[in-house]
Amino acid sequence: MTKRILGIDPGLASLGFGSIRADHNTLELLDYGIIQTPAKTDVGKRLQTIYEDLHQVLTDQKPDLVALEKLFFYRMGNTILVAQARGVVMLVLAQHQLPVIEYTPAQIKLALTGYGAANKEDVQVAVARELKLSTLPRPDDASDALAVALTAWFQR
Amino acid sequence: MTKRILGIDPGLASLGFGSIRADHNTLELLDYGIIQTPAKTDVGKRLQTIYEDLHQVLTDQKPDLVALEKLFFYRMGNTILVAQARGVVMLVLAQHQLPVIEYTPAQIKLALTGYGAANKEDVQVAVARELKLSTLPRPDDASDALAVALTAWFQR
Repeated sequence: MTKRILGIDPGLASLGFGSIRADHNTLELLDYGIIQTPAKTDVGKRLQTIYEDLHQVLTDQKPDLVALEKLFFYRMGNTILVAQARGVVMLVLAQHQLPVIEYTPAQIKLALTGYGAANKEDVQVAVARELKLSTLPRPDDASDALAVALTAWFQR
Repeated sequence: MTKRILGIDPGLASLGFGSIRADHNTLELLDYGIIQTPAKTDVGKRLQTIYEDLHQVLTDQKPDLVALEKLFFYRMGNTILVAQARGVVMLVLAQHQLPVIEYTPAQIKLALTGYGAANKEDVQVAVARELKLSTLPRPDDASDALAVALTAWFQR
């Protein structure tokens, strides 16, 4: 069965997304990118940009499934801001009635490289290899989003 | 100048709101209550309830200004869930183009009781006194929301 999977790496300054189409034989990159919001704008307006742009991404990509990285307290100062952005992401996904699956960073690393403590570059190389890209996907947040989308496919 | 001020105490399980109208001579309670979401429902659906119900509260109350309690890491386990709900609150306020002002718990206690380390009941008694209520407003989250609304008025 063919599936369209959207991976999202939530963030306030930069939210990564990556969209793939997969079936038993093929794995295809559809699109990837980031939603950026300027640090000088107030938080409400930034969340509004994420809300509107993510609705547009979902309308464009029409995923069957959305995969998200689980949020931990690993960067204390940023965690509240990231969690606020993540709340808006969860809202938009619920409004589109999309199934959501979450993975820890270790699960993503393990799924992509076979090693749960792999570094960022190893994961990016694996993303590029799986999707037959000639260069590493950039920026990092978009690459992370593709990694979590691929994890959802490998773990199906 | 008369002002309608809405106080919000953001939370995922229970979001408190309290609406007052104030001018130089009078301080009037308009409404207060909570938006509750059931713990067994998935987070996206709960955030959707908050999104829709808060839009309704704003449409009903038509505040000129919204006051929020600042979020700290004082309850670690809950902070991500509360911050996700708070992100949806900030989104809805931005969609209504409302000015938002934030206060720390100490600022609220100080404004209501004259003592920055006052306990919860002292604050509730002050809320009831200022708004000439014969009983303490319940539940706690609604009372907290009225306290932050009153803080915004006293600090004007």
